[in-house]
Amino acid sequence: MFMNSKTDITNLVDKVVRFVLVNTSHPGNIGASARAIKTMGFNRMDLISPKDFPHETAIYRSKAASDILEKAQIHKKLYDAIEDCQFVVGTSARKRKVPWPLVGPREAAEEIINLSLSGTKNIAIVFGREDHGLNNEEMGLCNLHVAIPTSEKYSSLNLSQAVQILAYEIRTQALFKSNKTFKQEWDVPLADSEEVERLINHFDEIMQDVDFYDQENPRKLLTRVRRFFKRSKMDHMEANIFRGLFSSIQKKIKK
Amino acid sequence: MFMNSKTDITNLVDKVVRFVLVNTSHPGNIGASARAIKTMGFNRMDLISPKDFPHETAIYRSKAASDILEKAQIHKKLYDAIEDCQFVVGTSARKRKVPWPLVGPREAAEEIINLSLSGTKNIAIVFGREDHGLNNEEMGLCNLHVAIPTSEKYSSLNLSQAVQILAYEIRTQALFKSNKTFKQEWDVPLADSEEVERLINHFDEIMQDVDFYDQENPRKLLTRVRRFFKRSKMDHMEANIFRGLFSSIQKKIKK
Repeated sequence: MFMNSKTDITNLVDKVVRFVLVNTSHPGNIGASARAIKTMGFNRMDLISPKDFPHETAIYRSKAASDILEKAQIHKKLYDAIEDCQFVVGTSARKRKVPWPLVGPREAAEEIINLSLSGTKNIAIVFGREDHGLNNEEMGLCNLHVAIPTSEKYSSLNLSQAVQILAYEIRTQALFKSNKTFKQEWDVPLADSEEVERLINHFDEIMQDVDFYDQENPRKLLTRVRRFFKRSKMDHMEANIFRGLFSSIQKKIKK
Repeated sequence: MFMNSKTDITNLVDKVVRFVLVNTSHPGNIGASARAIKTMGFNRMDLISPKDFPHETAIYRSKAASDILEKAQIHKKLYDAIEDCQFVVGTSARKRKVPWPLVGPREAAEEIINLSLSGTKNIAIVFGREDHGLNNEEMGLCNLHVAIPTSEKYSSLNLSQAVQILAYEIRTQALFKSNKTFKQEWDVPLADSEEVERLINHFDEIMQDVDFYDQENPRKLLTRVRRFFKRSKMDHMEANIFRGLFSSIQKKIKK
Protein backbone atom coordinates (compact mmCIF):
# COMPACT_ATOMS: atom_id res chain seq x y z
CA MET A 1 0.00 0.00 0.00
CA PHE A 2 3.04 2.27 0.49
CA MET A 3 5.71 3.20 -1.99
CA ASN A 4 9.13 1.81 -1.30
CA SER A 5 11.80 4.34 -0.52
CA LYS A 6 15.37 4.13 0.66
CA THR A 7 14.97 6.99 3.11
CA ASP A 8 12.40 5.54 5.46
CA ILE A 9 12.15 8.14 8.20
CA THR A 10 9.57 6.07 10.10
CA ASN A 11 12.31 3.54 10.90
CA LEU A 12 14.45 6.37 12.20
CA VAL A 13 11.96 8.15 14.48
CA ASP A 14 10.75 4.81 15.87
CA LYS A 15 14.18 4.32 17.41
CA VAL A 16 14.51 7.89 18.64
CA VAL A 17 11.15 8.66 20.22
CA ARG A 18 9.96 7.33 23.59
CA PHE A 19 6.54 7.94 25.14
CA VAL A 20 6.65 8.79 28.84
CA LEU A 21 3.52 8.55 31.03
CA VAL A 22 3.67 10.27 34.41
CA ASN A 23 1.71 8.95 37.44
CA THR A 24 -0.99 7.30 35.36
CA SER A 25 -3.99 6.29 37.54
CA HIS A 26 -5.82 3.82 35.31
CA PRO A 27 -3.96 0.74 34.07
CA GLY A 28 -6.43 0.60 31.14
CA ASN A 29 -4.96 3.86 29.88
CA ILE A 30 -1.45 2.42 30.01
CA GLY A 31 -2.56 -0.60 27.98
CA ALA A 32 -4.47 1.51 25.44
CA SER A 33 -1.44 3.80 25.10
CA ALA A 34 0.84 0.82 24.43
CA ARG A 35 -1.51 -0.29 21.65
CA ALA A 36 -1.71 3.28 20.32
CA ILE A 37 2.05 3.66 19.96
CA LYS A 38 2.55 0.18 18.51
CA THR A 39 -0.03 0.76 15.76
CA MET A 40 2.02 3.80 14.76
CA GLY A 41 5.26 1.81 14.70
CA PHE A 42 6.77 2.96 18.01
CA ASN A 43 7.88 0.61 20.75
CA ARG A 44 9.37 2.38 23.75
CA MET A 45 7.24 3.42 26.69
CA ASP A 46 8.49 4.71 30.04
CA LEU A 47 6.24 4.84 33.10
CA ILE A 48 6.83 7.21 35.99
CA SER A 49 5.39 5.82 39.26
CA PRO A 50 2.20 4.38 37.74
CA LYS A 51 -0.53 3.97 40.39
CA ASP A 52 -1.51 0.42 39.49
CA PHE A 53 0.93 -1.48 37.30
CA PRO A 54 1.44 -4.23 36.24
CA HIS A 55 -2.28 -4.93 35.99
CA GLU A 56 -4.42 -7.34 33.96
CA THR A 57 -6.55 -4.46 32.64
CA ALA A 58 -3.43 -2.93 31.10
CA ILE A 59 -2.65 -6.21 29.35
CA TYR A 60 -6.26 -6.63 28.18
CA ARG A 61 -6.47 -3.11 26.71
CA SER A 62 -3.06 -3.39 25.03
CA LYS A 63 -4.35 -6.30 22.85
CA ALA A 64 -1.34 -7.47 20.82
CA ALA A 65 0.90 -4.74 22.22
CA SER A 66 1.62 -6.46 25.54
CA ASP A 67 5.30 -6.67 24.51
CA ILE A 68 5.44 -2.86 24.87
CA LEU A 69 4.15 -3.21 28.44
CA GLU A 70 6.59 -6.02 29.27
CA LYS A 71 9.61 -4.01 28.25
CA ALA A 72 8.31 -0.67 29.58
CA GLN A 73 10.87 1.03 31.80
CA ILE A 74 9.54 2.15 35.18
CA HIS A 75 11.06 5.10 37.03
CA LYS A 76 10.36 7.02 40.20
CA LYS A 77 10.85 10.52 38.81
CA LEU A 78 10.37 12.02 35.36
CA TYR A 79 13.99 13.15 35.29
CA ASP A 80 15.19 9.51 35.38
CA ALA A 81 13.34 8.77 32.14
CA ILE A 82 14.65 11.79 30.22
CA GLU A 83 18.19 12.16 31.60
CA ASP A 84 19.71 10.93 28.33
CA CYS A 85 17.26 12.87 26.10
CA GLN A 86 18.40 15.82 23.99
CA PHE A 87 14.84 16.99 23.38
CA VAL A 88 11.79 16.66 25.60
CA VAL A 89 8.25 17.58 24.57
CA GLY A 90 5.67 18.08 27.32
CA THR A 91 1.95 17.79 26.62
CA SER A 92 -0.09 20.54 28.17
CA ALA A 93 -3.75 21.41 28.40
CA ARG A 94 -3.45 24.37 30.73
CA LYS A 95 -1.94 27.78 30.25
CA ARG A 96 1.13 28.39 32.35
CA LYS A 97 1.87 31.62 34.19
CA VAL A 98 5.34 31.77 32.64
CA PRO A 99 4.69 30.87 29.00
CA TRP A 100 6.88 28.25 27.34
CA PRO A 101 7.31 27.66 23.60
CA LEU A 102 3.90 26.11 22.77
CA VAL A 103 2.84 24.46 19.51
CA GLY A 104 0.22 22.08 18.14
CA PRO A 105 0.89 18.36 17.46
CA ARG A 106 1.69 19.00 13.81
CA GLU A 107 4.42 21.52 14.55
CA ALA A 108 5.79 19.34 17.36
CA ALA A 109 5.96 16.34 15.00
CA GLU A 110 7.77 18.48 12.43
CA GLU A 111 10.38 19.49 15.00
CA ILE A 112 10.81 15.92 16.27
CA ILE A 113 11.39 14.62 12.74
CA ASN A 114 13.83 17.40 11.87
CA LEU A 115 15.83 16.75 15.02
CA SER A 116 15.86 13.00 14.34
CA LEU A 117 17.10 13.64 10.80
CA SER A 118 19.87 15.87 12.09
CA GLY A 119 21.14 13.13 14.39
CA THR A 120 19.33 13.61 17.72
CA LYS A 121 19.29 10.16 19.33
CA ASN A 122 16.81 10.38 22.20
CA ILE A 123 13.57 12.33 22.23
CA ALA A 124 10.82 12.01 24.83
CA ILE A 125 7.16 12.97 24.65
CA VAL A 126 5.78 13.32 28.15
CA PHE A 127 2.11 12.86 29.14
CA GLY A 128 0.76 13.92 32.54
CA ARG A 129 -1.80 12.58 34.99
CA GLU A 130 -5.38 11.90 33.82
CA ASP A 131 -6.81 14.48 36.21
CA HIS A 132 -4.30 17.33 36.25
CA GLY A 133 -1.56 16.75 33.70
CA LEU A 134 2.05 17.68 34.35
CA ASN A 135 3.03 20.00 37.17
CA ASN A 136 5.17 23.10 36.66
CA GLU A 137 8.36 21.40 37.77
CA GLU A 138 7.85 18.61 35.22
CA MET A 139 6.97 21.10 32.47
CA GLY A 140 10.19 22.92 33.32
CA LEU A 141 12.15 19.82 32.27
CA CYS A 142 10.73 20.09 28.75
CA ASN A 143 12.15 22.02 25.79
CA LEU A 144 8.84 22.41 24.00
CA HIS A 145 5.23 22.31 25.12
CA VAL A 146 2.55 20.86 22.87
CA ALA A 147 -1.22 21.28 23.21
CA ILE A 148 -3.86 19.40 21.25
CA PRO A 149 -6.43 21.89 19.91
CA THR A 150 -9.51 20.56 21.69
CA SER A 151 -12.95 22.11 21.67
CA GLU A 152 -13.45 25.12 23.95
CA LYS A 153 -16.66 23.47 25.15
CA TYR A 154 -15.13 20.16 26.21
CA SER A 155 -11.38 19.74 26.31
CA SER A 156 -10.96 16.61 28.43
CA LEU A 157 -9.20 14.21 26.08
CA ASN A 158 -8.55 10.68 27.29
CA LEU A 159 -4.83 10.05 27.96
CA SER A 160 -4.47 7.25 25.42
CA GLN A 161 -6.22 9.38 22.79
CA ALA A 162 -3.64 12.13 23.31
CA VAL A 163 -0.89 9.52 22.93
CA GLN A 164 -2.58 8.26 19.75
CA ILE A 165 -2.77 11.73 18.21
CA LEU A 166 0.90 12.52 18.84
CA ALA A 167 2.04 9.10 17.59
CA TYR A 168 -0.17 9.44 14.51
CA GLU A 169 1.15 12.91 13.70
CA ILE A 170 4.78 11.82 13.90
CA ARG A 171 4.17 8.73 11.77
CA THR A 172 2.10 10.62 9.19
CA GLN A 173 4.69 13.35 8.76
CA ALA A 174 7.53 10.82 8.64
CA LEU A 175 5.63 9.04 5.85
CA PHE A 176 5.10 12.32 3.99
CA LYS A 177 8.80 13.16 4.30
CA SER A 178 9.76 9.67 3.14
CA ASN A 179 7.45 9.93 0.14
CA LYS A 180 5.66 6.93 1.57
CA THR A 181 2.17 8.36 1.63
CA PHE A 182 -0.67 6.34 0.20
CA LYS A 183 -0.17 5.48 -3.38
CA GLN A 184 -3.54 4.99 -4.98
CA GLU A 185 -3.59 1.57 -6.55
CA TRP A 186 -5.98 1.03 -9.39
CA ASP A 187 -6.59 -2.21 -11.19
CA VAL A 188 -7.23 -0.74 -14.66
CA PRO A 189 -5.61 2.22 -16.49
CA LEU A 190 -7.70 5.36 -16.78
CA ALA A 191 -9.61 5.93 -20.02
CA ASP A 192 -7.81 8.17 -22.49
CA SER A 193 -9.35 11.27 -24.08
CA GLU A 194 -10.34 9.42 -27.24
CA GLU A 195 -12.29 6.82 -25.27
CA VAL A 196 -14.08 9.50 -23.26
CA GLU A 197 -14.94 11.49 -26.40
CA ARG A 198 -16.35 8.37 -28.09
CA LEU A 199 -18.38 7.67 -24.98
CA ILE A 200 -19.80 11.20 -24.90
CA ASN A 201 -20.70 10.95 -28.59
CA HIS A 202 -22.35 7.61 -27.95
CA PHE A 203 -24.31 9.12 -25.04
CA ASP A 204 -25.42 11.92 -27.36
CA GLU A 205 -26.64 9.37 -29.93
CA ILE A 206 -28.59 7.47 -27.28
CA MET A 207 -30.26 10.65 -26.03
CA GLN A 208 -31.39 11.37 -29.59
CA ASP A 209 -32.45 7.76 -30.16
CA VAL A 210 -34.81 7.88 -27.18
CA ASP A 211 -35.88 11.53 -27.69
CA PHE A 212 -34.34 12.48 -24.39
CA TYR A 213 -33.46 16.09 -25.12
CA ASP A 214 -34.33 19.55 -23.93
CA GLN A 215 -35.75 20.87 -27.21
CA GLU A 216 -35.09 24.49 -26.32
CA ASN A 217 -31.49 24.09 -25.27
CA PRO A 218 -30.15 20.74 -26.46
CA ARG A 219 -26.46 21.53 -25.91
CA LYS A 220 -26.88 22.40 -22.25
CA LEU A 221 -27.66 18.83 -21.33
CA LEU A 222 -24.72 17.48 -23.26
CA THR A 223 -22.41 19.98 -21.60
CA ARG A 224 -23.43 18.59 -18.23
CA VAL A 225 -22.95 15.04 -19.46
CA ARG A 226 -19.52 16.00 -20.76
CA ARG A 227 -18.57 17.62 -17.47
CA PHE A 228 -19.60 14.54 -15.54
CA PHE A 229 -17.60 12.11 -17.65
CA LYS A 230 -14.57 14.39 -17.82
CA ARG A 231 -14.28 14.88 -14.09
CA SER A 232 -15.15 11.34 -13.06
CA LYS A 233 -11.65 9.96 -13.85
CA MET A 234 -13.28 6.98 -15.49
CA ASP A 235 -11.06 3.99 -16.19
CA HIS A 236 -10.75 2.01 -19.43
CA MET A 237 -12.98 -0.84 -18.28
CA GLU A 238 -15.73 1.47 -17.01
CA ALA A 239 -15.72 3.27 -20.37
CA ASN A 240 -16.09 -0.08 -22.12
CA ILE A 241 -18.99 -1.04 -19.86
CA PHE A 242 -20.88 2.15 -20.81
CA ARG A 243 -20.07 1.73 -24.53
CA GLY A 244 -21.21 -1.90 -24.45
CA LEU A 245 -24.43 -0.99 -22.70
CA PHE A 246 -25.17 1.82 -25.15
CA SER A 247 -24.59 -0.53 -28.13
CA SER A 248 -26.98 -3.06 -26.62
CA ILE A 249 -29.59 -0.33 -26.07
CA GLN A 250 -29.27 0.84 -29.67
CA LYS A 251 -29.59 -2.75 -30.99
CA LYS A 252 -32.71 -3.26 -28.91
CA ILE A 253 -34.26 0.04 -30.07
CA LYS A 254 -33.57 -0.60 -33.76
CA LYS A 255 -35.13 -4.08 -33.71
CA MET B 1 -5.31 30.56 23.11
CA PHE B 2 -6.75 30.87 19.61
CA MET B 3 -6.97 33.89 17.38
CA ASN B 4 -10.41 35.25 16.78
CA SER B 5 -11.65 35.11 13.25
CA LYS B 6 -14.95 35.78 11.54
CA THR B 7 -14.71 32.72 9.36
CA ASP B 8 -14.74 29.97 11.93
CA ILE B 9 -14.88 26.82 9.86
CA THR B 10 -14.95 24.59 12.96
CA ASN B 11 -18.48 25.85 13.66
CA LEU B 12 -19.45 24.91 10.13
CA VAL B 13 -18.05 21.36 9.92
CA ASP B 14 -19.40 20.56 13.39
CA LYS B 15 -22.91 20.92 12.01
CA VAL B 16 -22.21 19.03 8.78
CA VAL B 17 -20.26 15.97 9.90
CA ARG B 18 -21.75 12.93 11.65
CA PHE B 19 -19.84 9.91 12.92
CA VAL B 20 -21.48 6.58 12.16
CA LEU B 21 -20.46 3.39 14.01
CA VAL B 22 -21.59 0.10 12.47
CA ASN B 23 -22.34 -3.00 14.61
CA THR B 24 -20.04 -1.99 17.44
CA SER B 25 -19.48 -4.89 19.87
CA HIS B 26 -18.07 -3.14 22.95
CA PRO B 27 -20.16 -0.39 24.58
CA GLY B 28 -16.89 1.03 26.00
CA ASN B 29 -15.82 1.86 22.46
CA ILE B 30 -19.08 3.71 21.84
CA GLY B 31 -18.56 5.78 25.00
CA ALA B 32 -14.91 6.51 24.20
CA SER B 33 -15.90 7.52 20.66
CA ALA B 34 -18.53 9.93 22.00
CA ARG B 35 -15.87 11.55 24.18
CA ALA B 36 -13.42 11.62 21.26
CA ILE B 37 -15.79 13.49 18.95
CA LYS B 38 -16.93 15.91 21.65
CA THR B 39 -13.36 16.94 22.51
CA MET B 40 -12.97 17.86 18.85
CA GLY B 41 -16.16 19.92 18.83
CA PHE B 42 -18.47 17.46 17.06
CA ASN B 43 -21.77 16.28 18.47
CA ARG B 44 -23.62 13.89 16.18
CA MET B 45 -23.17 10.16 16.40
CA ASP B 46 -25.26 7.50 14.66
CA LEU B 47 -25.19 3.87 15.73
CA ILE B 48 -26.07 1.01 13.40
CA SER B 49 -27.37 -2.04 15.32
CA PRO B 50 -24.93 -1.78 18.24
CA LYS B 51 -24.52 -5.14 20.03
CA ASP B 52 -24.92 -3.83 23.57
CA PHE B 53 -26.37 -0.35 23.89
CA PRO B 54 -27.42 1.57 25.96
CA HIS B 55 -24.92 0.29 28.53
CA GLU B 56 -23.38 1.75 31.70
CA THR B 57 -19.86 1.10 30.39
CA ALA B 58 -20.61 3.37 27.44
CA ILE B 59 -21.73 6.11 29.81
CA TYR B 60 -18.69 5.61 32.06
CA ARG B 61 -16.21 5.78 29.19
CA SER B 62 -17.90 8.83 27.64
CA LYS B 63 -17.12 10.91 30.78
CA ALA B 64 -18.76 14.32 30.19
CA ALA B 65 -19.89 13.36 26.69
CA SER B 66 -22.93 11.33 27.77
CA ASP B 67 -25.13 13.93 26.02
CA ILE B 68 -23.72 12.64 22.72
CA LEU B 69 -24.84 9.12 23.69
CA GLU B 70 -28.29 10.27 24.80
CA LYS B 71 -29.05 11.95 21.49
CA ALA B 72 -27.31 9.31 19.33
CA GLN B 73 -29.56 8.09 16.54
CA ILE B 74 -29.87 4.32 16.28
CA HIS B 75 -30.65 2.59 12.99
CA LYS B 76 -30.92 -0.94 11.71
CA LYS B 77 -28.99 -0.51 8.47
CA LEU B 78 -26.14 1.80 7.44
CA TYR B 79 -28.21 3.17 4.58
CA ASP B 80 -30.76 4.62 7.04
CA ALA B 81 -28.06 6.77 8.63
CA ILE B 82 -26.65 8.14 5.38
CA GLU B 83 -29.76 8.46 3.21
CA ASP B 84 -29.67 12.27 3.47
CA CYS B 85 -25.87 12.54 3.09
CA GLN B 86 -24.26 14.02 -0.01
CA PHE B 87 -20.85 12.62 0.87
CA VAL B 88 -19.97 9.46 2.76
CA VAL B 89 -16.45 8.50 3.84
CA GLY B 90 -15.80 4.86 4.79
CA THR B 91 -12.86 3.89 6.98
CA SER B 92 -10.98 0.90 5.72
CA ALA B 93 -8.05 -1.16 6.91
CA ARG B 94 -8.19 -3.83 4.25
CA LYS B 95 -7.49 -3.75 0.57
CA ARG B 96 -10.55 -4.31 -1.57
CA LYS B 97 -10.64 -6.44 -4.70
CA VAL B 98 -12.23 -3.62 -6.67
CA PRO B 99 -10.25 -0.55 -5.56
CA TRP B 100 -12.12 2.57 -4.51
CA PRO B 101 -10.72 6.11 -4.24
CA LEU B 102 -8.52 5.72 -1.12
CA VAL B 103 -6.78 8.48 0.82
CA GLY B 104 -5.23 9.14 4.23
CA PRO B 105 -7.04 11.04 7.04
CA ARG B 106 -5.40 14.34 6.09
CA GLU B 107 -6.63 14.23 2.51
CA ALA B 108 -10.09 13.06 3.64
CA ALA B 109 -10.31 15.96 6.10
CA GLU B 110 -9.32 18.37 3.34
CA GLU B 111 -12.09 17.06 1.10
CA ILE B 112 -14.67 17.16 3.91
CA ILE B 113 -13.83 20.79 4.71
CA ASN B 114 -13.86 21.85 1.07
CA LEU B 115 -17.27 20.23 0.56
CA SER B 116 -18.62 21.87 3.75
CA LEU B 117 -17.37 25.26 2.54
CA SER B 118 -19.06 24.78 -0.80
CA GLY B 119 -22.41 24.14 0.85
CA THR B 120 -22.64 20.38 1.38
CA LYS B 121 -24.98 19.94 4.32
CA ASN B 122 -24.62 16.33 5.45
CA ILE B 123 -21.41 14.33 5.50
CA ALA B 124 -20.95 10.97 7.22
CA ILE B 125 -17.78 9.22 8.33
CA VAL B 126 -18.46 5.52 8.77
CA PHE B 127 -16.52 3.17 11.07
CA GLY B 128 -16.85 -0.62 10.88
CA ARG B 129 -16.88 -3.47 13.38
CA GLU B 130 -13.99 -3.89 15.83
CA ASP B 131 -13.05 -7.27 14.39
CA HIS B 132 -13.63 -6.98 10.65
CA GLY B 133 -14.50 -3.43 9.69
CA LEU B 134 -17.06 -2.62 7.01
CA ASN B 135 -18.22 -5.22 4.51
CA ASN B 136 -18.11 -4.71 0.76
CA GLU B 137 -21.77 -3.75 0.53
CA GLU B 138 -21.31 -1.03 3.16
CA MET B 139 -18.11 0.22 1.52
CA GLY B 140 -20.04 0.45 -1.73
CA LEU B 141 -22.31 3.06 -0.13
CA CYS B 142 -19.30 5.36 0.39
CA ASN B 143 -17.91 7.98 -1.98
CA LEU B 144 -14.40 7.92 -0.58
CA HIS B 145 -12.43 5.35 1.42
CA VAL B 146 -9.96 6.49 4.05
CA ALA B 147 -7.23 4.40 5.67
CA ILE B 148 -5.13 5.40 8.67
CA PRO B 149 -1.47 4.70 7.88
CA THR B 150 -0.75 2.17 10.64
CA SER B 151 2.44 0.22 11.14
CA GLU B 152 2.98 -2.76 8.83
CA LYS B 153 3.91 -4.78 11.94
CA TYR B 154 0.75 -4.06 13.94
CA SER B 155 -2.20 -2.37 12.32
CA SER B 156 -5.02 -3.10 14.76
CA LEU B 157 -6.12 0.34 15.88
CA ASN B 158 -8.82 0.59 18.55
CA LEU B 159 -12.14 1.85 17.12
CA SER B 160 -12.34 4.96 19.32
CA GLN B 161 -8.73 5.81 18.44
CA ALA B 162 -9.63 5.76 14.74
CA VAL B 163 -12.60 8.03 15.51
CA GLN B 164 -10.28 10.34 17.47
CA ILE B 165 -7.77 10.62 14.62
CA LEU B 166 -10.40 11.49 12.02
CA ALA B 167 -12.09 14.01 14.32
CA TYR B 168 -8.72 15.54 15.20
CA GLU B 169 -7.70 15.86 11.55
CA ILE B 170 -10.91 17.62 10.57
CA ARG B 171 -10.74 20.01 13.53
CA THR B 172 -7.04 20.75 13.00
CA GLN B 173 -7.47 21.52 9.32
CA ALA B 174 -10.58 23.60 9.97
CA LEU B 175 -8.54 25.61 12.49
CA PHE B 176 -5.70 26.03 9.99
CA LYS B 177 -8.14 27.21 7.33
CA SER B 178 -9.80 29.59 9.81
CA ASN B 179 -6.39 31.04 10.76
CA LYS B 180 -7.17 29.85 14.27
CA THR B 181 -4.06 27.83 14.88
CA PHE B 182 -2.12 28.36 18.07
CA LYS B 183 -0.92 31.86 18.50
CA GLN B 184 2.11 31.82 20.73
CA GLU B 185 1.44 34.11 23.65
CA TRP B 186 4.45 35.54 25.37
CA ASP B 187 4.40 37.70 28.49
CA VAL B 188 7.36 39.93 27.58
CA PRO B 189 8.52 41.35 24.21
CA LEU B 190 11.59 39.75 22.65
CA ALA B 191 14.93 41.47 23.19
CA ASP B 192 15.97 43.73 20.33
CA SER B 193 19.32 43.51 18.53
CA GLU B 194 20.87 46.25 20.61
CA GLU B 195 20.06 44.44 23.86
CA VAL B 196 21.47 41.19 22.53
CA GLU B 197 24.66 42.89 21.30
CA ARG B 198 25.16 44.53 24.68
CA LEU B 199 24.66 41.21 26.36
CA ILE B 200 27.21 39.49 24.13
CA ASN B 201 29.72 42.30 24.82
CA HIS B 202 29.05 41.94 28.50
CA PHE B 203 29.57 38.17 28.27
CA ASP B 204 32.88 38.86 26.49
CA GLU B 205 33.97 41.21 29.30
CA ILE B 206 33.11 38.63 31.95
CA MET B 207 35.07 35.92 30.15
CA GLN B 208 38.10 38.23 30.11
CA ASP B 209 37.57 39.27 33.74
CA VAL B 210 37.73 35.66 34.90
CA ASP B 211 40.41 34.58 32.37
CA PHE B 212 37.96 32.18 30.74
CA TYR B 213 39.34 32.16 27.22
CA ASP B 214 40.93 29.82 24.77
CA GLN B 215 44.28 31.62 24.36
CA GLU B 216 44.95 30.10 20.95
CA ASN B 217 41.61 30.92 19.40
CA PRO B 218 39.78 33.49 21.52
CA ARG B 219 37.17 34.42 18.88
CA LYS B 220 35.92 30.89 18.37
CA LEU B 221 34.37 30.79 21.82
CA LEU B 222 32.69 34.14 21.41
CA THR B 223 31.27 33.07 18.05
CA ARG B 224 29.58 30.15 19.78
CA VAL B 225 28.29 32.41 22.54
CA ARG B 226 26.94 34.77 19.88
CA ARG B 227 25.26 31.98 18.00
CA PHE B 228 23.58 30.75 21.17
CA PHE B 229 22.16 34.13 22.18
CA LYS B 230 21.12 34.99 18.64
CA ARG B 231 19.16 31.81 18.06
CA SER B 232 17.63 31.58 21.53
CA LYS B 233 14.95 34.20 20.85
CA MET B 234 15.62 35.68 24.26
CA ASP B 235 13.07 38.12 25.62
CA HIS B 236 13.67 41.56 27.12
CA MET B 237 13.41 40.39 30.72
CA GLU B 238 15.71 37.43 30.22
CA ALA B 239 18.32 39.75 28.68
CA ASN B 240 18.02 42.01 31.74
CA ILE B 241 18.47 39.06 34.09
CA PHE B 242 21.75 38.11 32.39
CA ARG B 243 22.97 41.73 32.30
CA GLY B 244 22.12 42.18 35.99
CA LEU B 245 23.89 38.99 36.94
CA PHE B 246 26.99 39.95 34.94
CA SER B 247 27.11 43.37 36.60
CA SER B 248 26.91 41.75 40.04
CA ILE B 249 29.70 39.34 39.10
CA GLN B 250 31.90 42.23 37.94
CA LYS B 251 31.24 44.20 41.12
CA LYS B 252 32.16 41.17 43.25
CA ILE B 253 35.36 40.57 41.25
CA LYS B 254 36.54 44.17 41.40
CA LYS B 255 36.11 44.46 45.15
